[in-house]
This record gives sequence, structure tokens and C-alpha cells, in this order.
Amino acid sequence: LPPSRALAVDLGVSRGVVTDVYAQLAAEGYLKTRRGSGTKVSQLAMPRQTPSPASDAGSGSIDFDLRPGQPDFDAFPRKRWQAEVARALRVIPSRALTYPDPLGIGELRTAVSDYVTRVRGVDARADSVIIGPSTTYGISTIWRALRELGARRVGIENPGWRWQSRTVQQAGLQAVPIAVDEAGLMVDELDAAKVDAICLTPAHQYPTGVVMTSDRRSAVVGWARRRGALIVEDDYDAEFRYERTAVAALQGLAPDLIAFCGTLSKTLVPALRLAWMVVPRRIHAAVSKQYADTWPGPSVIDQLAAASFIERGELDRHIRTSRRRYRLRRDALVSTLSSRAPELRIGGVAAGLHVIAWLNRPVDDVAIASSARDLGLAVHSLHHHCFATDAVGPALVLGYASLSEPQLRRGAAMLANLVRAAQ
Amino acid sequence: LPPSRALAVDLGVSRGVVTDVYAQLAAEGYLKTRRGSGTKVSQLAMPRQTPSPASDAGSGSIDFDLRPGQPDFDAFPRKRWQAEVARALRVIPSRALTYPDPLGIGELRTAVSDYVTRVRGVDARADSVIIGPSTTYGISTIWRALRELGARRVGIENPGWRWQSRTVQQAGLQAVPIAVDEAGLMVDELDAAKVDAICLTPAHQYPTGVVMTSDRRSAVVGWARRRGALIVEDDYDAEFRYERTAVAALQGLAPDLIAFCGTLSKTLVPALRLAWMVVPRRIHAAVSKQYADTWPGPSVIDQLAAASFIERGELDRHIRTSRRRYRLRRDALVSTLSSRAPELRIGGVAAGLHVIAWLNRPVDDVAIASSARDLGLAVHSLHHHCFATDAVGPALVLGYASLSEPQLRRGAAMLANLVRAAQ
Repeated sequence: LPPSRALAVDLGVSRGVVTDVYAQLAAEGYLKTRRGSGTKVSQLAMPRQTPSPASDAGSGSIDFDLRPGQPDFDAFPRKRWQAEVARALRVIPSRALTYPDPLGIGELRTAVSDYVTRVRGVDARADSVIIGPSTTYGISTIWRALRELGARRVGIENPGWRWQSRTVQQAGLQAVPIAVDEAGLMVDELDAAKVDAICLTPAHQYPTGVVMTSDRRSAVVGWARRRGALIVEDDYDAEFRYERTAVAALQGLAPDLIAFCGTLSKTLVPALRLAWMVVPRRIHAAVSKQYADTWPGPSVIDQLAAASFIERGELDRHIRTSRRRYRLRRDALVSTLSSRAPELRIGGVAAGLHVIAWLNRPVDDVAIASSARDLGLAVHSLHHHCFATDAVGPALVLGYASLSEPQLRRGAAMLANLVRAAQ
Repeated sequence: LPPSRALAVDLGVSRGVVTDVYAQLAAEGYLKTRRGSGTKVSQLAMPRQTPSPASDAGSGSIDFDLRPGQPDFDAFPRKRWQAEVARALRVIPSRALTYPDPLGIGELRTAVSDYVTRVRGVDARADSVIIGPSTTYGISTIWRALRELGARRVGIENPGWRWQSRTVQQAGLQAVPIAVDEAGLMVDELDAAKVDAICLTPAHQYPTGVVMTSDRRSAVVGWARRRGALIVEDDYDAEFRYERTAVAALQGLAPDLIAFCGTLSKTLVPALRLAWMVVPRRIHAAVSKQYADTWPGPSVIDQLAAASFIERGELDRHIRTSRRRYRLRRDALVSTLSSRAPELRIGGVAAGLHVIAWLNRPVDDVAIASSARDLGLAVHSLHHHCFATDAVGPALVLGYASLSEPQLRRGAAMLANLVRAAQ
């Protein structure tokens, strides 16, 4: 580059401007200045802008999405949520726009504690509630806390939510599959498994749909008390029970032994990324530290919106109308399957967002799910939710909440044909 | 400590848990176990307990909040943000209300990649961007990923952001303080420190406010390349530079060696809980796995709102008006301090949301901060940001962005009196 004095004359600016610019570019690494040898342009790879690759991974389109765990996205009350956000933005004091309590804002912790006490029979106080972005996140922090407290092995349901083993392993613990039968988790197996904690879905076992019996409930609490173990209750979709009132949360039986996890992902939509836990005193400090150290909390504005949405009864109203709709959808799916493919046995109670359909012969449920996918029909095989070494089945796991009744009837008819062809 | 058997009974846990904990604490040096004489607590200098990053415990009311790191909460564009949320809720397809990509939605990753390329000279593509709730969270995942890849020691700036050592330790790594002088991190110390990574604030060192010189920039990149180490660039407040254009991000010099972290906490408000990272290819898979396994992502609706806010130029506009206001506020604080307490030396460049005021005699900056607090004046001592064993100073760290000019003049005058009284 020309000497600063020469360039200043060329450009008709003061020399100070040029030396400032040279100094700036040198600080950014674009120029190299050495005394006596002038200013040179650095050899640098310049940042370049590359467009992102198309995000669609190229699998065929899904016409009937019967994957489990998805609520009715069309029913999300967009206007009401918008009104709550607008209200939150109107009322929140400026000072509350700073770094929030990493465990969640007081308004939402209070609203959640009232809600889970009233609706799920949970023993909760605002200060035992922790707000986070997802149940996955919350449970991960429990595993990490337990590991710090000396735990080594965690029992998970088999069949069960497949991702749970990832959360356990990610925290440096060993995941130990424990079998599930028609009465829920086989509690008798826990002693031999030598686990320090167990993760359960007692209200509506995922994915078999069974409700844990009261004998098993007492037994698992007794086991936890004897062993000094922790129970994690994943209450993911318990708000939806269609033939009777939902069984209360297990947590109410032993709040000192049980961490309770709830979410808006099933009652509203996963996109909100809002979930909560009620954690017992003995792990509260260790779990809180995880939240304080990594700071995962959701937007304060969204937390305030959610608090109002819950306290004004909007969540209850939305659940009530969703329950009626989901029940009709479940009926449409189940009745079509039962009439078209009587060899399928529908398992579990009428609850939640999915059913399990057991196949009565040893056919390959993975192959059926794969053939279905070729027809634009997305379903899960039970195999997908089992530890490979202890697979049960065959069965299909079918979500119904996000499809209309006519869609469900058509999808179920296609699926029935596939099943019949496979038997 | 009580015998393990007695403590196990007291806590209602198995004795194995207690002996494991005792063994762990003994291994970490907190306990001494001698056969026959029981378990005793070691004589250890405990790290001083810091409360959460932004909030300091302190009972009385705060009339002048001069704590660093806080933007102007009153200036948050509530109406514009509300409009963006409303728009997002109007345009988002129902299907996008399901579980999102844990690395962030495509729209926001693209918007951020454009923004950091344009404004900070970062070499980014949409698929190298990861969206998360906070820089704290993002950096925590980097440490965990590095640990899985075999790292053991991480260098952090001293003085530096005090919380950083927590994020390092939480991930099971050792935090090694590296000194900072007027030219930035003392890169010469890195070889002897034998660290596998270093966390830097090159654009505006926190809290000393110095800009890393171009020599040091080249040197640290050279060190990282020789050693195969990773540089984490925490670009927390680089958008605010008042006398000249901000120095471009270090990341542009060596995108293969440097992870870049940016946030909306300083340019907008922390309450939004939205931050991003651009991570190099070699840790991308390991960091992505952390996100996929614990699922910390912010609301999809907020991500869509933020993408539009950035792409429509609203963020740039907000930064431009904030920059003018913050510059006047900084001037008000600095000029009052300079005229009333000439023994204070203002350090660092005119940038960011805080200044450092060095005291010219060995007085106790912690005591001054504490006396200030009694007068309703919240400030940080530099001591607060130092490793106790390697403290530099004395100095005060003063935020100015959230107070009006008259408030700043009054607060600065009160502070000047305290400083003069202490000298």
C-alpha cells in the first residue's frame, strides 16, 4: 500500500484518517505493518458466503403422518397465544428484561405449581418447580445431578421412549432396560438391576399405553425408599384420558422420592419449547446448579405469556376441546383398523396421542413400517422403541392427534391392507 | 463428618451412595479419610461463591445500577418485537409447530449467518450456525464436546468473566487463568499453560475493555494451529464501538480453529434468551450431538420472529440508535468521574456497555463496591472478575447503558466521593 502521507494527499483527506484506517485494518489482520518496510496486505483467506444446502433431505412426501407424540398442530390457538405475548410485552417492567432466574420466573413457577397440583395431584410449591425448554433437557440435568451424587445406573422402560437411553448415556450413566407388561413396569426386576434411579411413564406407558397398577405403584415407591433411589415420572401426555379421569401422578405418593416432569409439547405444541419439573428437595440443589451453570431458560416474555395462559384457564379450555377431538380421532383409527385388520390387537387404555397395535404373528414390524413409508404413510414400529437385545412385539405405534377423521380412516385402511398382506 | 452408615439413615439413601460421595470428595481433596479416625473436612481455600452472572446479592434497594453487562432495558422495541411475533404466528405453517431442528430453524440460521458475516466479518454458513438460549449454554456444550474429544485444560482470561470458570468446571475440565495486559491476552503464557482451548474476548476484553492487538491476534492463531487447540471467541458486545468501526471478529482469520459466539442479550435484552455460535467443522458433530441430546432450543416462534427482525434490518437500526445513546451515557459517566476523581484512570477503548476505572493506590476495591452498595449504588469490583490467587487491580467495573445521563452524573459523583475518601 502507498505510504499514509501519499494516500492522504491522493484522497484529499488528513493523514490521521489514513493512519487510523491502516491501524484498523492491521488490527483486523488484513494488513501487516512493519517499521521501515511500509504497509502490506496480509495473505488471508477471506470469508466467503456459501448458500446453505437445501434442508429437505429428499425422502418421499408424507401424506399420512401417524408418528406418535404429535398433537394437533392446526388447533394451536395462535390468536390467544399472540394476545398473551402482547399482554406480557405490555405489562413486563423494563427491569425484568434482564437475566432471569435460571429456574424460571416466579409467575410461571406459581402458575405451574397450581396447575400440576390441581390437574395431576402433584405435591408442588412454586419453589420446587423448575422451568426449562423441554423434558429432555430437564431429565438430562437430573441424570447429571445424580451422577455427581454418586449414581451409576439408571433403569429405563423397555419398550420405552428410545431417546431416553441417549439422555442417560450422555450424562455418563449406564441405561438399564427394565421390562414392561400389562401392569406397567415390572418392579420385581429393579432389585436385580441394581439401578440408582428409574424413569417411568405411569399414567400412560410410552409406547404400550398401559396404566401402572396401584400394586405396582406401591411396589416401585417401596423399592425407591428401600434403596434410596430416585423415580423420575415423565408425565408427558397424561392430560388426555378419554374414558375416565386420569390417574393422579405417582409423585403425590412420595414427593420426597419422585421428580415429576410435565410439558406443553403435547397439550399445546412442541414449538413453544416450554416444560417443567417438580423436583424433590434432595436433588434440588444439584439440579438447580445445572440450570444456573448452563442457563437454558426460555424467553422471559414467553414464560410470562404461559403463566397468564395457564392462570386464565386457557390451557384447561384448550385441553378440554382437544380431548373431545382426539377421542373421535382415536375412535376413527381404532374402528377402521379393527374392522379391516382384525388380526391387529389394540393395546393400552384410551388415552394420550397414540395407540399401539399388536400384530398376532411373528411378522417384521420394521418391514411393515418401511412399506407404509413407501406409500406416504409414516408410522413407528414397536421395534424402534425397544432395546435391540430385548425386543418385544411385533407391533405398530400409531399417532392420531394431528390427522382428521377422514384422513385417519383412509390411512388406517391402507395400513390394514399392508398388515393383511404381511401375515 | 458422621459415619457413612449414620448419614445414610439420616438422608434416607443407601449406604453405598454415601460411601461413593465420601470417596469422590476425598478424591477431589475436600475430605480426608483416615482409617480408624473417621472422615474429616480438609482445610481448603474454597473458591468464593459467586451468585448468578448478572445479579448480585444485596439487600437494600439499588438506585443506581452500574453493574456491567446490562443494555438499556427501556429501549427494548416492544412494539416491533410484538409485531414480529404476530407475523411469525401468522405465517408459520402448522407442521412447523412440531419438534424443531435442535440446532435452530433454517430461517434464523440463515439470518444470523448473513448478519455475522456482514457486521462482524465472520466466515459463516447457515449450516455452521447453531442457535441456543444463551452464550453460556453454547460455550458449555463446546467444553463438553472438547472433553469427549480428549481435552483436559481450558485457558480463560484473567481478569475475565467470572462465570466462565464455572462453565469449564461443570464440563469436567480444568480452568487455567491466563493473564491479560493492555494488548489483550498474554499469548506467550499459553504454551506453558498446556491448555487445549482458550476462551477470548478479543473485540473488547471483559472486563478490562482492551482490544487485542493484531500481533497478539496472529500469535494466538499461530499458537492454536501449532498446538491443534481451539479458540472460543466470545463476541458479547462487539456491536458497540463508539469512536471507530469495530475490529472484525478474530474468527475470520482462522475459521477452522475458532468458534464464534454472539448474542441478542447485549444488542436487545437478555430476557429474549437467544444466542448463536458459528462452530468449526472439527467440533461441529460433537457440539451438535449435545444440542440434539438435551434439546435446549428456543421457541420456534421466537426464532422466526428474530430471523425477520434481523433480516428486515431492525436489529441494525436498534443498534445504531443504541450506539448513539450509549456513547453519550459513557461520556457522562467518564467525564464526571474524571473531573471529580482524577485519581481514577479509565481503561480500555470506548466500546461496549461498561468501563473499567483503575484506582491508583492499593485500596480495597471490594470494600469500595460494598460501601457504594450501602448508598444504593451497585458496581462491580475488578476483584470480582479475577481468580483470587492472581488478582489484579484495584479497579471498579461500571456499566452505563441502562441509566440516563443525569443518573450517571449523580451516581458517578457519589462514587467519586467514595473513592476520594478511600484514598
